[in-house]
Amino acid sequence: MTTTHAHAHPAADLPAAPSSPTDGRPVAPSQGTRRGLGIGEITVTGGFWAGRQDINSTSTLQHCGAWMDRLGWLANFDRVADGTTGPGRPGWQFSDSEVYKLMEALAWDFGRTQDPRTDQVLRDLTARIAGAQDDDGYLNTFFGHVGQKGRYSDLEMGHELYCVGHLLQAAVARLRTSGADPLVDIARRAADHVCREFGPDGREAICGHPEIELGLVELGRALGEPRYGAQAQLFVERRGRGLLGALPLLSPSYFQDDIPVREATVWRGHAVRALYLTAAAVDVAVDTGDDDLLAVLEKQWTTSVARRTYITGGMGSRHQDEGFGEDWELPPDRAYCETCAGIASNMVSWRLFLATGDVRYADLMERTFYNVIATSPDPDGRAFFYANPLQQRTAGEPTAPDAVNPRAEGAARAPWFDVSCCPTNVARTLATWQLYAGTVDDDGTVSVLQYAPSTVRLSLPDGDRLVLEVETDYPRSGIIVVRVEVAPDRPVRLRLRVPSWATGTALVEGGRRTPAAPGFVTVHRTLVPGEQLRLELPVAARFSWPDRRIDAVRGCVAVERGPVVLCVESTDLPDDLVLEDLRLDLSTGLADAEPGAVVQAVFTSGEARSESESESQPEGDGDGEAGLPYRAALRRSPETAPVGVRLVPYHSWAERGPATMRVFLPTT
Amino acid sequence: MTTTHAHAHPAADLPAAPSSPTDGRPVAPSQGTRRGLGIGEITVTGGFWAGRQDINSTSTLQHCGAWMDRLGWLANFDRVADGTTGPGRPGWQFSDSEVYKLMEALAWDFGRTQDPRTDQVLRDLTARIAGAQDDDGYLNTFFGHVGQKGRYSDLEMGHELYCVGHLLQAAVARLRTSGADPLVDIARRAADHVCREFGPDGREAICGHPEIELGLVELGRALGEPRYGAQAQLFVERRGRGLLGALPLLSPSYFQDDIPVREATVWRGHAVRALYLTAAAVDVAVDTGDDDLLAVLEKQWTTSVARRTYITGGMGSRHQDEGFGEDWELPPDRAYCETCAGIASNMVSWRLFLATGDVRYADLMERTFYNVIATSPDPDGRAFFYANPLQQRTAGEPTAPDAVNPRAEGAARAPWFDVSCCPTNVARTLATWQLYAGTVDDDGTVSVLQYAPSTVRLSLPDGDRLVLEVETDYPRSGIIVVRVEVAPDRPVRLRLRVPSWATGTALVEGGRRTPAAPGFVTVHRTLVPGEQLRLELPVAARFSWPDRRIDAVRGCVAVERGPVVLCVESTDLPDDLVLEDLRLDLSTGLADAEPGAVVQAVFTSGEARSESESESQPEGDGDGEAGLPYRAALRRSPETAPVGVRLVPYHSWAERGPATMRVFLPTT
Repeated sequence: MTTTHAHAHPAADLPAAPSSPTDGRPVAPSQGTRRGLGIGEITVTGGFWAGRQDINSTSTLQHCGAWMDRLGWLANFDRVADGTTGPGRPGWQFSDSEVYKLMEALAWDFGRTQDPRTDQVLRDLTARIAGAQDDDGYLNTFFGHVGQKGRYSDLEMGHELYCVGHLLQAAVARLRTSGADPLVDIARRAADHVCREFGPDGREAICGHPEIELGLVELGRALGEPRYGAQAQLFVERRGRGLLGALPLLSPSYFQDDIPVREATVWRGHAVRALYLTAAAVDVAVDTGDDDLLAVLEKQWTTSVARRTYITGGMGSRHQDEGFGEDWELPPDRAYCETCAGIASNMVSWRLFLATGDVRYADLMERTFYNVIATSPDPDGRAFFYANPLQQRTAGEPTAPDAVNPRAEGAARAPWFDVSCCPTNVARTLATWQLYAGTVDDDGTVSVLQYAPSTVRLSLPDGDRLVLEVETDYPRSGIIVVRVEVAPDRPVRLRLRVPSWATGTALVEGGRRTPAAPGFVTVHRTLVPGEQLRLELPVAARFSWPDRRIDAVRGCVAVERGPVVLCVESTDLPDDLVLEDLRLDLSTGLADAEPGAVVQAVFTSGEARSESESESQPEGDGDGEAGLPYRAALRRSPETAPVGVRLVPYHSWAERGPATMRVFLPTT
Repeated sequence: MTTTHAHAHPAADLPAAPSSPTDGRPVAPSQGTRRGLGIGEITVTGGFWAGRQDINSTSTLQHCGAWMDRLGWLANFDRVADGTTGPGRPGWQFSDSEVYKLMEALAWDFGRTQDPRTDQVLRDLTARIAGAQDDDGYLNTFFGHVGQKGRYSDLEMGHELYCVGHLLQAAVARLRTSGADPLVDIARRAADHVCREFGPDGREAICGHPEIELGLVELGRALGEPRYGAQAQLFVERRGRGLLGALPLLSPSYFQDDIPVREATVWRGHAVRALYLTAAAVDVAVDTGDDDLLAVLEKQWTTSVARRTYITGGMGSRHQDEGFGEDWELPPDRAYCETCAGIASNMVSWRLFLATGDVRYADLMERTFYNVIATSPDPDGRAFFYANPLQQRTAGEPTAPDAVNPRAEGAARAPWFDVSCCPTNVARTLATWQLYAGTVDDDGTVSVLQYAPSTVRLSLPDGDRLVLEVETDYPRSGIIVVRVEVAPDRPVRLRLRVPSWATGTALVEGGRRTPAAPGFVTVHRTLVPGEQLRLELPVAARFSWPDRRIDAVRGCVAVERGPVVLCVESTDLPDDLVLEDLRLDLSTGLADAEPGAVVQAVFTSGEARSESESESQPEGDGDGEAGLPYRAALRRSPETAPVGVRLVPYHSWAERGPATMRVFLPTT
């Protein structure tokens, strides 16, 4: 064992690491050479994500609970407990899962903040759901009681096992942040019930929506209970063999029940289902040492990211079936890009990064964090996007603050949805953001994957401590300073991720400046407390060109700045211009309008036609053949004077009110 | 009264006009100055549409009946009649309407062919449905009997009135081609029931799917019963006021229940619903002399055609909700363009043409006939497209001839669908195609609107006869010869439609050649039997450019030939090319490959990458940033040798087996 430098720097004044009896991490493979950060190992101290985590703590968690209280989704548990439930039960068949996702978020957030009020909310919810659990461990408020449909009578759409999966994930969060408690007992009884009912000697069946697998694997890992992982493996392997019944207008691919997971080559069908299944399959592959399966899943990621993924990281091209489209089918206007699919994509990428260490998984996670997950909640944390299109054609109306939004589309975030999976999914994800910021390998290699002002206090595998202070204004600035606070008196292998877009990056150590290519830049030497590593990422705005096979954005280009995809909103246009008339003039380039925040580009307008004219004279549009918008001659737009237009981060769109918007911009 | 020339030409040898007791026409406004052709006034003698009408007669009608027999949709009526129906009733709640649409098709087809076997099939079906009608006129096999939901218990989705509407339309076809019979009695009793139940003193309610209005108006016109038209008007005016209950995930616009029809500015929501409603509203406007309403409906047509219509005439951009998209939202790959929406579009345009005489309505009808309606059935008339996308990315598998297709998409026509509205709608439309080929005005003006080899025997308003023989190979050729067989010995005003695309048309009369602009070319003089009018339409292939605001086809061009939209199919590509690699070289132009049928254009391929390579090395695609299909530099495709590629009529696509296909072609 090596000795540790006494630290002479402010680390001594930092708040103590929260109590973390089990070194809480959301994903803890039972095999592998790499682990994520524990909840006691990192504190985000400011910046982009700290603000969002704070809002999540202080606003979103309460918001979600209040809506579920108002809609009766919480009372559903009470009514099962006191025997008064019946056919009038409010909420969809999967509304229990929203309660569990909120509980998971509360558990992680308490682990992070140690706020006793959060703990109490979670304890109260635990008591309420406990009363609804049947003696044999079955727990569901929609099925299985007097006046309700029977247990497991609708495996295709009933979501019973899906709900249990989220219950188990909530319990894992509790277990890994606070230790065993009644929630863990409830989950254990539910998991035992599932294993009895659906085990090798039980029903040969699966749930229409994967999720139980994820909960079983992690609860099994957390409790050291191999039966749970085995049951998850059974569910994963059963899928793709037609065990789900045929439903009108939904094909087996919707459920990923068309092809066994180890034979599939690409993600297809309902995006969240496909990604939850893939995440669980990675878990199974890792825990069982099934390298063949892992290789298949990596190939699915590769192909799906190469052909079925938006520049935001968003997945799911179709509103119909909330699903993946065909290869290259990536329309910006009808992009579904469900918030939950972005969250699920990061669940997959995180597991694949832990399994392989391939930097591309961390790259995609950053893209998805900034451009899908951060896009969903509004700055108050009380309204959300469900779908995240890359083009909005009509501004529409704001959603009333007390109205449930029936449609997962539009130009305004909504406080709650008829199917309201996204708000609680955002909540549990933001509550854990910092845990994906780095990894520690068994050989002691430390990798910093995501950048935020933070304090990182690591216990290295040999017991040595490494404490780093990260200072940055990222992503506004590309400068990231990693200050060593505590380090062992021996060489340490420290890697900093250089994002794939960051060509021209430099690492500055003690005045020495070294170019660093995308991937990882590695420092492997004895670190001295007080020294600084300065990573300089070139975050200046840049053009990004789509593959020629993406038909829907032919002739267009996107603008990105660092990890942030930009867009143009009608809010920023002069009064006499409409978004559809703008053409990006490539000859003039891009420049920052104010330090690090937004970018001013120069456009020429296509036709200088005002919105009011276009509204009042719709007939004038049909000047193509027979009133149709198709003409025998290609019409050249008249030349107009250049107009400077501001681009803003896509994640902030519609924060200033409903607007038309586009990410991909036609070029001159 | 003027005298009529004795005809010295082959008209005397033509088959006698079928018996037409009521001069059968599908749409017969009770007011107006213009009427369509009666079923006794035109015989199509060959060519594009005669072949399709023959196949419809000899194949499709039987096919539809056999499927409905096999699936139990016919027996549903027997089971209601004998009191054995119950909860296991097969088919969707609207399956009765398919039986009625088949009956309508049979009635029109019998009117056209006078084939007694067709008559007998219709009589047999009439007897079967008669037994299922309740004493008070109610007729539905899904609702209202022992073990079923109550009458009108689900007006939003129950389709009861929709089914009655189709029953009424079938009865109108019977009445106008054969006269009163038991089917007409059934319909009258059903209509009376609807008027009692939903009249001014009855329920203030509407049906989720417009259609009852169309049936009521036409039955009222045919029987001279004003109550029916008044009831239709009531239904039309009630709509758009929120009378339909809220349904999860469906907005009121889906049902056109968001805005009263006279306040709406554009078609929106479910396309077939929107268009059936509009057609009925035109009927109401015409019959009541409501010019304000008519003007509103014309504006809706204008705006919707200018901004929400495909080059094929197809309508409905979205699979989700089978609905219209926003303005300019016209993706080729996910174009829904339901066959029934094309049929419904022509129902609207036909009514507007009769009401206004504006040639643009006839233009759109031709476009829709050739490129939507003709596209649906295969050459055998036993398989159909339900959706008609303008781009197919994957070839997929052929549908088994005995399998119901659950999905309304894919690269193969299917024999039947789970929701099988299109086959019977195609059948009733093809059975009446010739009736939309011309009109006669009260002032004696005769307008030829659609061109086919045909004999036209008109009774002019003053009682004179006009017999024309049309000879043409249109649309293969643009030469249309109208030979006068019989004409009055006085000036006649005869107009021939010059399609909107036909710039450069000429009319040749007795060796004199006159240029004719798009619109109508008019001959107003005494016609001499034996003389010929020769219309020369320039059908050579031409480019058609989309409006710059249609984002989804930016940088692309379509090719049309006469009224026919062309496409490229993978079937016609060399083995080493895939469709996505082709770029149209505009400098080389277009040429006919063989007389009048297809066109050979010269393309350069984008990357000369074979399909097999792309399948085996999907990873190689993700060579953009971090494996995503977006790159910092615009990649120019390598120059390749030109390749000649055949374009074929879009309506014939996939007839040679499943294929990838596109209408809009990227340009170099």
